[in-house]
Amino acid sequence: MRIDVVTIAQDVRQHLVSGKNAVVIDVLRATSTMCTALANGCSAIYPVTSPEDAFLLAASFHPGTFLIGGERGGIKVEGFDLGNSPREYTSNSVGGKKLIMTTTNGTLAIRNCRGATNVYLAALLNATTVARRIAEEKMDTVLVCSGTEGAFTLEDAYCAGMVAREVRRVAPVELSDMALACILIYERYENDPLGIMNLAIHGQKLRRIGFGEDLAYCAQKDLFDIVPVFRNNVVSLD
Amino acid sequence: MRIDVVTIAQDVRQHLVSGKNAVVIDVLRATSTMCTALANGCSAIYPVTSPEDAFLLAASFHPGTFLIGGERGGIKVEGFDLGNSPREYTSNSVGGKKLIMTTTNGTLAIRNCRGATNVYLAALLNATTVARRIAEEKMDTVLVCSGTEGAFTLEDAYCAGMVAREVRRVAPVELSDMALACILIYERYENDPLGIMNLAIHGQKLRRIGFGEDLAYCAQKDLFDIVPVFRNNVVSLD
Repeated sequence: MRIDVVTIAQDVRQHLVSGKNAVVIDVLRATSTMCTALANGCSAIYPVTSPEDAFLLAASFHPGTFLIGGERGGIKVEGFDLGNSPREYTSNSVGGKKLIMTTTNGTLAIRNCRGATNVYLAALLNATTVARRIAEEKMDTVLVCSGTEGAFTLEDAYCAGMVAREVRRVAPVELSDMALACILIYERYENDPLGIMNLAIHGQKLRRIGFGEDLAYCAQKDLFDIVPVFRNNVVSLD
Repeated sequence: MRIDVVTIAQDVRQHLVSGKNAVVIDVLRATSTMCTALANGCSAIYPVTSPEDAFLLAASFHPGTFLIGGERGGIKVEGFDLGNSPREYTSNSVGGKKLIMTTTNGTLAIRNCRGATNVYLAALLNATTVARRIAEEKMDTVLVCSGTEGAFTLEDAYCAGMVAREVRRVAPVELSDMALACILIYERYENDPLGIMNLAIHGQKLRRIGFGEDLAYCAQKDLFDIVPVFRNNVVSLD
């Protein structure tokens, strides 16, 4: 089993993920938010790449059965029910509901992975559980960091490092240089996930626009033991 | 001044380097070899992207005034005078001579940077001197890691981290997340450059094909206080 890392959503290509497992990571905040929604009873998430597609899909659902969430520039899109702060996705708001979501980087990464054998979603909130699934399945795996606006982000690399290190701990595995680099980044800040977010440019931006508390929330490791799977255009619990 | 990092030669785009300084890094082994050749009296290096171009250019030079060097798959190209081992590039072999070179990744990275304001070459052998030049010039800078066959390599990231950290030490600078990641990688192995090369896939490959001593050679920090510059298709000392 080999583990490699793609550092931005835009770099995912069919041949990179075909016949492999893909793990999509967008710690700040798409996969943290999706994990939270599913853990809080949301029945299914439909990731779409634009607000227009979100409204289009919404028109085909029964009123009252779904919510629309997501962001552009970190801010809730006009006409959406929810933004991209995981703290909005409580049982009260999303329990029993379907969710249509679009975010700048995370939903793009998920959709770009469609050619993979399995597409899992990871954040710090569920990284160890996903890593153990990867180790069990013994299939070549690509950790897909979403990045931010086409650039590498430290917090996604940190999460990829957490996953890769746990897989290596429990299974024989060959790691690419980027997977090794992510482990080095992870180990340097192992006990200080908030520290890596404060160092990261995207973390600083979220703090500036008023989402500092989201950083502390997303920095929690293994809050959930869930494995979200993207299959037939829907993210749900496996 | 902002410092960013491109992780593979193939990702260099005109708009990423235009109006900026570019520092090309290929620790194993192109920039280590070029630094060594220039420090040992080679008068000028002509980087070309294919063996065919090397022979074509050679036909326009006076016999006895030049050598052809480089590799494909790590091995000297048939008909070339020298391979890509820096230890071949002694004063005896290259002193007073011009050099035509083609390597798999490094010469591609150099040529892809042509649109930059200045193109410098760095290896561990001269990283601090190049970093100080960057800091003096106070211009936005892209550290271009060559990578190996389209993939990120730890040893180039380590060198980028060494440069970025020295620039930050002596000048006010804004660092991208990838530049910060390279510094974390550098600091983790600061006193063990050979350790990072032994961990890196490309280092392991070179060791397998008989170039283990090159790793120890290329792991030497600041052996030279030179700044190689690529200008008008030629690399020479500034």
